[in-house]
Amino acid sequence: MAEAVALGDGARGRTAPNPNVGCVIVLDGEIVGKGATAPGGRPHAEAVALKQAGARARSATLYTTLEPCAHVSTRGPACSNLIADAGIARVVAAIQDPDPRTAGLGFKILRKAGVKVKTGVGKVAAEASMAGFLTRLAFGRPRITLKLALSIDGKIALPSGESKWITGEDARAHVHLERAHSDMILVGRGTYMADQPRLDVRLPGLEERSPRRALLSRGEAVPGWEMLKSPKDVHRLHDVNDLLVEGGSATATAFLAEDLVDRILIYRAPILVGEGKSSFGYIGLDAIADAHGRWQAVDPRPLGIDRLEVYERVRG
Amino acid sequence: MAEAVALGDGARGRTAPNPNVGCVIVLDGEIVGKGATAPGGRPHAEAVALKQAGARARSATLYTTLEPCAHVSTRGPACSNLIADAGIARVVAAIQDPDPRTAGLGFKILRKAGVKVKTGVGKVAAEASMAGFLTRLAFGRPRITLKLALSIDGKIALPSGESKWITGEDARAHVHLERAHSDMILVGRGTYMADQPRLDVRLPGLEERSPRRALLSRGEAVPGWEMLKSPKDVHRLHDVNDLLVEGGSATATAFLAEDLVDRILIYRAPILVGEGKSSFGYIGLDAIADAHGRWQAVDPRPLGIDRLEVYERVRG
Repeated sequence: MAEAVALGDGARGRTAPNPNVGCVIVLDGEIVGKGATAPGGRPHAEAVALKQAGARARSATLYTTLEPCAHVSTRGPACSNLIADAGIARVVAAIQDPDPRTAGLGFKILRKAGVKVKTGVGKVAAEASMAGFLTRLAFGRPRITLKLALSIDGKIALPSGESKWITGEDARAHVHLERAHSDMILVGRGTYMADQPRLDVRLPGLEERSPRRALLSRGEAVPGWEMLKSPKDVHRLHDVNDLLVEGGSATATAFLAEDLVDRILIYRAPILVGEGKSSFGYIGLDAIADAHGRWQAVDPRPLGIDRLEVYERVRG
Repeated sequence: MAEAVALGDGARGRTAPNPNVGCVIVLDGEIVGKGATAPGGRPHAEAVALKQAGARARSATLYTTLEPCAHVSTRGPACSNLIADAGIARVVAAIQDPDPRTAGLGFKILRKAGVKVKTGVGKVAAEASMAGFLTRLAFGRPRITLKLALSIDGKIALPSGESKWITGEDARAHVHLERAHSDMILVGRGTYMADQPRLDVRLPGLEERSPRRALLSRGEAVPGWEMLKSPKDVHRLHDVNDLLVEGGSATATAFLAEDLVDRILIYRAPILVGEGKSSFGYIGLDAIADAHGRWQAVDPRPLGIDRLEVYERVRG
């Protein structure tokens, strides 16, 4: 299942609105087929892996990060039928598909066809790998990640606006990787005007994965950029699983004030700035006590001389 | 030697102006004596350990974090003579004493008396444990540690000044431990007026280790508090190895602007504050490039839901 999760994770950022599923088929302890959801969302991971396995799918075990789909589309048959037809003996799935067109129906089709089904294996890792898709189905909007390069004292720039470079090369390379795994990237008009950012992916081999670009602005449209007038407009993004908000301060503040941030990536440089631009303005906090219990820290990891801190919004 | 370092480290904060040395005497694989510099600086660690070992010091090996002293004082004989007289066969010392009254003379006395001497064992750990003493001898001032409780976004309080509590109980307990290992604690007048802080040590068993208290202020003296008119006055503190600067923002800024901070302890809470008081004002930085290469991060460690980040000033 770990292999399946890794395959699915690699496809994150280019399968929307479909989930980035990973699938591995094992026969007699040997991997005979593997796949991930293809760019654009089709073919599905299971179809890719079954095609690779061919006749060796018969009596094999299929590991998938998500319940195989139950709905026939013009773009292909339902995976649960494909799996049953291929003679797969056993399906091990991490989680059930929350898509109402499947939602348990895929498992039902499999069991009815005599395929053994086991669920819940690798659930936590699979949920993390498909967090964007799952957030969209649960909340009707993308998973929103806020990215910031900060000093120890939480500054994003000098009073002059100078911010190049707070973090080092390794951290900046990691940002590009994060972009490659996002469906859309958003900045505010201030950042757009200041940097005319390309927001593309400059990592070898990943150049073609540059995501869609969006601008948070009430001003006139900019060619090549999608426009959001307010953070709440994310509810209109039905074909975006993962949205990366890159700044600046006003944009980040607007998303936080609306409680529309699910994950924060802090690229923390071991420097002090002192007087300078703070990362956020008023986010609606009026008492320190109210700030607690909202964010959970994931273990930080070093990125060159910098450090990546990840915080996830605790909801419910 | 690790045991000796731990013993010495435990005495940090109450031996100034003497170093906080640790000493262990081993005979035939068994510890027959151990000691640390006593409160106030005397007796020395070696004297304590030798007394405990008694006749079993003969032919034993003595591990010490610092070269045994060579100078006779009204408060006691030189440790190097004591060691030789006790019949110790071998001395293993982590580092040489930079005190000009010893500075190699202790080793010379030992060797002349037929004692084998080995140095450099556990050097890094010993230097870390006696950093305050070593800083004072090298720079003519205490080692200065700046302590801050910060949010993810580097805020120390809401715009109203409310700062209770950014960090949780575990972090606050760690601050008390850090106080217990400091000879003196300093705050600015603003913090003094706002909090009337006791700055004592409220940990069970450590109540008696409350360090001296100092105020950074040009105003009138406050009973029970020593006064520093400017950060540069730390050069007058000849009997302080470890100085802990506790805030607030103006005081921290003043010390940083004078490059008089050797170590920063950040107690980082997993909260966002947004609009609020920043940790520092202008510290003399005019270009981001100049901020780099000054601070080295030590691995962070969790403290309850918070995290302790330690940064050490890179000099030379």
